[in-house]
Amino acid sequence: MSANGHFMRAEIYEQPAVLRRIAEREWQAIREAAARIQQENIDYVLLAARGTSDNAAKYFQYLLQIENGLPCGLATPSVVTLYRAQLNLRGGLVVGISQSGEAPDVVEYVVHARERGALTLAITNNPDSPLAQASHFHLFVHAGEERSVAATKTYTGTLATIYLLSHALKGASNAPDELCATAERMEHALQQEGVIRQAVDRYRYVRECVSLARGINQATAEETALKLIETCYVVCKAYSVADFMHGPFALIEPGFPCLLFAPDGATLPTVRESAARLREHGAETILFAHDPDILHLARTPIELPVDVPESVSPIVYIVLGQLFAYHLALTRDLNPDQPRGLQKVTRTF
Amino acid sequence: MSANGHFMRAEIYEQPAVLRRIAEREWQAIREAAARIQQENIDYVLLAARGTSDNAAKYFQYLLQIENGLPCGLATPSVVTLYRAQLNLRGGLVVGISQSGEAPDVVEYVVHARERGALTLAITNNPDSPLAQASHFHLFVHAGEERSVAATKTYTGTLATIYLLSHALKGASNAPDELCATAERMEHALQQEGVIRQAVDRYRYVRECVSLARGINQATAEETALKLIETCYVVCKAYSVADFMHGPFALIEPGFPCLLFAPDGATLPTVRESAARLREHGAETILFAHDPDILHLARTPIELPVDVPESVSPIVYIVLGQLFAYHLALTRDLNPDQPRGLQKVTRTF
Repeated sequence: MSANGHFMRAEIYEQPAVLRRIAEREWQAIREAAARIQQENIDYVLLAARGTSDNAAKYFQYLLQIENGLPCGLATPSVVTLYRAQLNLRGGLVVGISQSGEAPDVVEYVVHARERGALTLAITNNPDSPLAQASHFHLFVHAGEERSVAATKTYTGTLATIYLLSHALKGASNAPDELCATAERMEHALQQEGVIRQAVDRYRYVRECVSLARGINQATAEETALKLIETCYVVCKAYSVADFMHGPFALIEPGFPCLLFAPDGATLPTVRESAARLREHGAETILFAHDPDILHLARTPIELPVDVPESVSPIVYIVLGQLFAYHLALTRDLNPDQPRGLQKVTRTF
Repeated sequence: MSANGHFMRAEIYEQPAVLRRIAEREWQAIREAAARIQQENIDYVLLAARGTSDNAAKYFQYLLQIENGLPCGLATPSVVTLYRAQLNLRGGLVVGISQSGEAPDVVEYVVHARERGALTLAITNNPDSPLAQASHFHLFVHAGEERSVAATKTYTGTLATIYLLSHALKGASNAPDELCATAERMEHALQQEGVIRQAVDRYRYVRECVSLARGINQATAEETALKLIETCYVVCKAYSVADFMHGPFALIEPGFPCLLFAPDGATLPTVRESAARLREHGAETILFAHDPDILHLARTPIELPVDVPESVSPIVYIVLGQLFAYHLALTRDLNPDQPRGLQKVTRTF
C-alpha cells in the first residue's frame, strides 16, 4: 500500500497518462517495426506470453487478423522449452510479450524462433530486459514501475502499443490521436468507480462465477477473470459466449453470477442473445456495456457512458473490470496489492 | 440411458474398438492427406473447433509442433464470421474439427480459408457432413453414433486420426500398430474404474476445482474439466501448471481440489514440482499418473498401471478423466447422459 492508498488503485488511475505517453514517444519506433514486418513478407504470427501478457496476446491475435488480415495464433512455449521441438519458422513473426521482459520460457522461445528463421518482436516494460535484448526489435510500453502484483497499467499499455502497430501496418497516420481519444474514454470509465463500489457489496460471498464476451473482448473477459482470481480468490472462468452457451451452460442455475462484456460492435447481437438466455435461466448477470437495450437485461448494469469504437474497446472496458475486482477485494477485506502465494515476475521454465 | 446403463459409460468402453477401426480403415486416407500436405509446402497450421473438438485441436497443436516441427495455432472463427476479416492464408493448412461436421462457424471459417488460399482438412464423425464436404480432404473418426451429450469416443477417435496424421507426415509406417497398442493401454485404464468409483465419494460436495497438466496433456486437463462441468456442474477451470503456479495459485487454500495429470515424459519434472508445492499449501490433490514418486504426493492417487509413450498419453489418460466425471455425476445423483440445458450439436454463428 502506498501513502495514499493501494498501489493497484493508483496504477489503474495512471492508465490514461500511459496511453498518452505511448502515443507521444513510441509511434516512431512502432512505424519502423511495421516497415520491417512489411519488408519481410510475413505470412503469419505466433505470440508467446503468460498470464496477463497472454491476454494482451489475445487482443493482438484478434486485432491483427481483423484489421490486417494477418493469420495469428498463440504459441505453446513448452514445445521448445520442454520437448525440444525444432520448429520451422521461416516466414513467421514471433512476438514475445512480458511486462518484466524476464519470463524465462518466453525468452527461450523467442531465442529459438530467431534461430529457426522467424522475425522476432518483443513488447515489454523494460528495454534492458532479456526479452527486449533477444528480439530483432522491441516496443516499450512506457508504464513506469508497476508495484501492484495484479498488473493493470502494463496490460493497457501493451494493448496500446499493439493498437498502434496494427494501424502503422495499415499506414494510418492518425493512430496516435485516436489513442489519445481512447485515453479520454478511459477517464469516463474511471468515473464509474462510485457505481462499481456500490455494486460489489452484493457479491461479498461469491465463490465462483464466469466472465463472458465474444471476439476481441475475449481478452477483456479473460483479464477480468484473472484479476478476480488474483485479488478476490473467486474461481472465475472466462469463456467466449460461443463456447459457453453449449457445454458449460450446464453450470447455470438461478443466481449463478455471470459477468458479461458487451461493447457496441459486431459481436453485440450474439452477446445480447446470450444475455437474454442467461436471464431466462435465472442467472445473475453483471453487464458492462454502453447499449441501453442490453443493459436492460442485467441484474447489475455497469454502464460505460461514452461511445467506443470496437477496436479500442478492450482498452477501455478492462478499466471497469479492474475496478470491479479491486472493490470486490476491499469488500471481502482482502488486500489487492498482496495476493497470497504470488510474486511479481513469472518464472516458468 | 440405454437398456444396460448409461450411454456415456457404454461409449467410454467402446473407445479401444474405435481406435482399432481407425488403424485398420483410415490409414490409407491419412497417408494420402499427408502426401498432399507435403506437396503443398505448408508453412503453418490453424485449427478451428469448439468445445471437445477444441481440446482435440490442442493435441494436434502440440503433437505436430513436437513431432513435425510445423507451427500450429488455434483459429478464432469470429474474425471471419462476425468481423468479416479477409485473411491471407496462402501457405497455410486450415483444419476444421467437429464430431457432427455441422458446427456452422467452423464450416464458415473453413469455406473462407479455402477461398483465401489455404489447404483445408476436416476431421469429423460424418463424411456426408457440411464440414467434410467443404474441405479439400476429410478424415473420418469411425466412432459410430454418439448418443451421450458428453462426447467421449469421438474425442479419442479424433486424437487417434491426428496421431496417425503426424506419423504419416514423418513416414512412420508402424503407426497403425502403435495405435492398436494404445487401444490395449486404454483397456488398462478402463480397468481402473473400480478405484475411481471408490475415490469419487469424497468429492460429492465439491463446487469448484482446477484441472492441471503441462504440454501435450493440456488437452487432457481441458477435456476433463469440460466433462466435469457438463456432467457434474462443478466449476472446473483447466490450466497449464506453468500459468497456474503464478496468478491463479492465489486460489489455493487448504482442501482446494486440484486434479493433476502427470504422465511420464518431458513434462513430469515440472508437474511433480507443482504437485509438491500444492501439497505444501494443503491443496487436495487428485493425481493421475504412472510414476510412483509423483503418485506418492497425492491425497487421491489414480494409478495408470502401464507404461505409455508421452505422444499417445492424452489418448489413454483421458479415459481416467472420463470415468472420474462419470462416477462423480452418479455419486451426485445426476444423469450424465442428460446435462441440463444442453443439446448435442454446437450451433454457434
